[in-house]
Amino acid sequence: MRVVVPFDVSEPNTRLAPVLDPEERLEFALAMLEDVLAAVRSAGGQPEVLATDSLDIATPVTVDDRPLTAAVNDRLAATEDEPLAVLMADLPLATPATVDRLLSTDGDVVLVPGRGGGTNAIVVRHPDFRTDYHDASIQDHRNRAADIGANLGTVDSYRLSTDVDEPADLVEVLLHGDGGAAEWLREHGFDVVTAEGRVQIGRD
Amino acid sequence: MRVVVPFDVSEPNTRLAPVLDPEERLEFALAMLEDVLAAVRSAGGQPEVLATDSLDIATPVTVDDRPLTAAVNDRLAATEDEPLAVLMADLPLATPATVDRLLSTDGDVVLVPGRGGGTNAIVVRHPDFRTDYHDASIQDHRNRAADIGANLGTVDSYRLSTDVDEPADLVEVLLHGDGGAAEWLREHGFDVVTAEGRVQIGRD
Repeated sequence: MRVVVPFDVSEPNTRLAPVLDPEERLEFALAMLEDVLAAVRSAGGQPEVLATDSLDIATPVTVDDRPLTAAVNDRLAATEDEPLAVLMADLPLATPATVDRLLSTDGDVVLVPGRGGGTNAIVVRHPDFRTDYHDASIQDHRNRAADIGANLGTVDSYRLSTDVDEPADLVEVLLHGDGGAAEWLREHGFDVVTAEGRVQIGRD
Repeated sequence: MRVVVPFDVSEPNTRLAPVLDPEERLEFALAMLEDVLAAVRSAGGQPEVLATDSLDIATPVTVDDRPLTAAVNDRLAATEDEPLAVLMADLPLATPATVDRLLSTDGDVVLVPGRGGGTNAIVVRHPDFRTDYHDASIQDHRNRAADIGANLGTVDSYRLSTDVDEPADLVEVLLHGDGGAAEWLREHGFDVVTAEGRVQIGRD
């Protein structure tokens, strides 16, 4: 299955600004992206990056500088006759096994919720489904599937539900990641520390 | 399989103090507990509550007022010759299907991570395994399994990884729960609202 992975080249991961400078945020975002692409390939998917600007990577890139929803819906409209998956780029805990679960779950529309109401992954096997990534998108996506009479599937995965966009999320990468994003964090001095009974990140 | 569900009767969910008063916190904690117990029963497990004080519920209760680790390890020591699961009480997104995945996953020790390094569920099929619920317990539990030569399994479940102990977690219950805890929140005026592009809880 073709798997579209949207990527914001200009200002990725702005909410990590408290702990990473702009250059580091881009490096880390690219490390997460490569982890996701590797998991997709290992699971037998054909990844393509949907980027806001050109990007020098080994995976096919489509450039579309419109907002996420418009860009993704354009890809869906262009591929109505075949299944298409959309997987976020900030899911460095994705593994071949979890992506395989995603791609093999039955449903005209298969959703993976993100924490806080987001939608971290979608598989679309219905010509009329379109996305809307604003606010509590998981609710909108469920409603849209119902509106078009699409059979709904859901994948219950901690790994795919863990999008990494805030400093607290880095703990999850350090504790559960074994790809390039986790390696990047360790190489840049991050480690898991416990302070006042809570688990946090520390940096050398 | 026997499934121990620890429950703190005296001061449950103290971190929900910003949004719930003490009486409400106990009511909500009991609603979450009953959701967990119902999921266990529907999955074919035999739930027993390990409570810090007596509790008037329809499920068998063992009272042990020691800290969590000591109380759980006492149960493990008492049942070395049969499998035992330990499932936290603040997992209101647990469903029969997810508990079934937990109980049927192979491994001498099966772990379910919680967000932030916690351990939300354990299945123990090895006589020498003991718990340690402090700090980043998922790391300790992995290390202990390795130390005793126990084969390790992991369940990748957003529902079981979502422990509800902070106000932000209530959004997850409202968006994805369909049991008594979600109903309790709605009856007490909570709803999902979007503010400044982020999804939050609101209360009437």
